[in-house]
Amino acid sequence: MRAVGPTGDAATPRPGRPRREETDRSIRGAALRLLGEGGPAAVTVEAVAAESGVAKTTIYRRYPDREALLRAVLTAAIGRPGDPPGTTPRERIRWALDQTWGQMAGVLGRGGLAAILGNSDSRFTELFRSVLTPYSDALADLIRADVAAGVLRRDLDADTVVSLLIGAYLGELVRRGRVDDGFSDRCLDMIWVAMTGG
Amino acid sequence: MRAVGPTGDAATPRPGRPRREETDRSIRGAALRLLGEGGPAAVTVEAVAAESGVAKTTIYRRYPDREALLRAVLTAAIGRPGDPPGTTPRERIRWALDQTWGQMAGVLGRGGLAAILGNSDSRFTELFRSVLTPYSDALADLIRADVAAGVLRRDLDADTVVSLLIGAYLGELVRRGRVDDGFSDRCLDMIWVAMTGG
Repeated sequence: MRAVGPTGDAATPRPGRPRREETDRSIRGAALRLLGEGGPAAVTVEAVAAESGVAKTTIYRRYPDREALLRAVLTAAIGRPGDPPGTTPRERIRWALDQTWGQMAGVLGRGGLAAILGNSDSRFTELFRSVLTPYSDALADLIRADVAAGVLRRDLDADTVVSLLIGAYLGELVRRGRVDDGFSDRCLDMIWVAMTGG
Repeated sequence: MRAVGPTGDAATPRPGRPRREETDRSIRGAALRLLGEGGPAAVTVEAVAAESGVAKTTIYRRYPDREALLRAVLTAAIGRPGDPPGTTPRERIRWALDQTWGQMAGVLGRGGLAAILGNSDSRFTELFRSVLTPYSDALADLIRADVAAGVLRRDLDADTVVSLLIGAYLGELVRRGRVDDGFSDRCLDMIWVAMTGG
């Protein structure tokens, strides 16, 4: 019979690979929380160990140093935006916008966004940016397709729309330090007039 | 006859107060350049001395430490937006927007904006924000007055417009690392449709 570990975990421990994946998830989650709060400088092996409860030696077996850890965590978080669900152009654009803001809020966080804006550690700036780019590109592509289909204004500059919509989130953070529920609705309501009317 | 100093400065040195003001301007200019490039942590008395060419002892005679220096420099840079020139609502809003972006680009710089976004030194975050607030408030007031005068859409949410317009600058920096000439025209063209049409 297997003894219950010192953590007193009541759940039956899963052997082998799943346990390893669980540890990876803990490490990654901790690294992203630290990044979001304190920027790249806050992601040290020591801090990740303290935040995740995973031993430093276990982290070092996977990653030679903090840079390798940060690169792996970010690369795993880049992802690819899927096909937008929804039937109307506005529903699909709304979904793509939510995905993009989700990368800003949930992956980069304020610390990661500040690191891009301030170019504070230039070795990482492009990697941070690449967490966002596939999503902002997908949003721009969706808008361009709707312009081509005649759903949106023929002379609409998709790239400026995307900068306005990504920027709105940053503008609220800089002005107020937070983004309230309902703000993305107000932004899209306003920009939608510019995208369709005029 | 006064000897030419070791810097070989050909201009006749002005005595007394003007000279003191010149030194102050050098210190402030250097502190703002360092802030813009590297954020608040880059503004040390040592770095300001090296950047300005003013001796550390001279800086310490004016400011007891780097925090006092940074506070004084930022407080002096807050300023108050004047009455917008121009006759059409759009010209006046454009002017107020240029003033606001000017505070972001010329006073806070990327380093100062990143410090607000990341709340990296919370003792300074509100002071940094106050460099921007009078200008963004003036922009919002101008828009509200034009809504009340029936020039802009009756249901226009001035506050969301301001976050979009401030954010657009930040969005470009995060997406591309720079804001090109002509971008503010493209933003205002687009938002203007939303402000008047629909």
